[in-house]
Amino acid sequence: MKSITLIGSGNLATHLGLTLKKQGFIITQVFSRKKNNALQLAKKLNSEYTDNINHLISSDLMIICIKDDAIKSILTKIKTENIIHTSGTLNINIFQKKFKNYGIIYPLQTFNKNIKTNFSDVPICVEANNVEFQKKLIKLSNKISNKVYEINSSQRKKIHLAAVFACNFSNHMYAIAEEILKEENIDKSILLPLIKETAKKVEKKNAKEVQTGPAIRKDTETIKEHLNSLNNLSYKKIYKLISSNILQNE
Amino acid sequence: MKSITLIGSGNLATHLGLTLKKQGFIITQVFSRKKNNALQLAKKLNSEYTDNINHLISSDLMIICIKDDAIKSILTKIKTENIIHTSGTLNINIFQKKFKNYGIIYPLQTFNKNIKTNFSDVPICVEANNVEFQKKLIKLSNKISNKVYEINSSQRKKIHLAAVFACNFSNHMYAIAEEILKEENIDKSILLPLIKETAKKVEKKNAKEVQTGPAIRKDTETIKEHLNSLNNLSYKKIYKLISSNILQNE
Repeated sequence: MKSITLIGSGNLATHLGLTLKKQGFIITQVFSRKKNNALQLAKKLNSEYTDNINHLISSDLMIICIKDDAIKSILTKIKTENIIHTSGTLNINIFQKKFKNYGIIYPLQTFNKNIKTNFSDVPICVEANNVEFQKKLIKLSNKISNKVYEINSSQRKKIHLAAVFACNFSNHMYAIAEEILKEENIDKSILLPLIKETAKKVEKKNAKEVQTGPAIRKDTETIKEHLNSLNNLSYKKIYKLISSNILQNE
Repeated sequence: MKSITLIGSGNLATHLGLTLKKQGFIITQVFSRKKNNALQLAKKLNSEYTDNINHLISSDLMIICIKDDAIKSILTKIKTENIIHTSGTLNINIFQKKFKNYGIIYPLQTFNKNIKTNFSDVPICVEANNVEFQKKLIKLSNKISNKVYEINSSQRKKIHLAAVFACNFSNHMYAIAEEILKEENIDKSILLPLIKETAKKVEKKNAKEVQTGPAIRKDTETIKEHLNSLNNLSYKKIYKLISSNILQNE
């Protein structure tokens, strides 16, 4: 598998495309419903581009990097031999045996077009519909990452769910913290050592073992004060719910 | 200020005591209601110890490192000239002018007795009831950290509230993620690059700008699937609430 078609032009498509190109793969074509997005990424990858799903050029491997909601319908419009998606949640069955070789490479990382990512550190979860294709996907994955795992659809779904908590939800906690500091005109840089340390701690210990703060200390006065000083009703709800869950899980 | 009395023997008292000792301060005595805890820390600090609040030896500075709920009542039993607490939330008024010099040094970090912390990176928020004492507290703080801030009680309270979200709550998100992986017997190490990257991203960008995942993508199918696969009702509630808040804040 040398030539690759990229379906999608978002954060993951961008990082994956650039990494594959760097490792010697040829990105034949980029497809995006938004022509300009396809063009932008195609430029970086030195590839063709299209916004017309009927104009796909054949290649050794088609990689679908679009949001889950859109994958099912786009699959009905694609004819090819080797195809994979990159979704954490979608079952391998979504390909419905319409293709000869199909599977998934799911890179377990948060990507942003504007932030550099070292792909060699990104865990990649691989699954395929047959042993031969699985081997090929593992070979490809090993070229871009040092952390390749064979993971079935049900495991992958749980991993993705866990990732939503560990990444998206913790990031939202950072966002709320930034918002609270902004109200007092305090620069968010004061929080960075704390955020870094919190993430570092779980490298060696389970998160549950190293929990700190008012909830785990059952510091009800502080919890009351915090709730009083939160003006945003949603933040108040989130504070209450997570604090009580910390206590429950103790 | 050379000699110090430590009231408390928990995570913060331990780290602060060890750091102060390393910088040449003399920890005269450790007090804890639990005699054995006082003894354990006193051993490390080469100091006296007591579990009797009436047996405190006088020193240049008394540092109160116990949970917020207990500070008010312990203050009624203490007579000294120079006294500070280390709480993020408690107002400077808690000292009620009972002491000549009083204030706060609040180290903005999560501490665990069993994990080493580099104190020089820990932001310290300083407040005092008079300029002279403020100067002394800043001088002391500069000896143990490179990041010393003058912060008043109302700002400090907001900083502590922000820290609860950025640290305790994001740590709880890690704990839930670990729990979910455990159900499938997947080692949590697969999540570590993601956790690290998520924390790293906010060093350069605002958390809101770099949010990823099903909620911000409005990937309703995935959100539904995730909710279905969550057996724990509290986790389900947390997933729903945070996802809808991510969408609201967009």
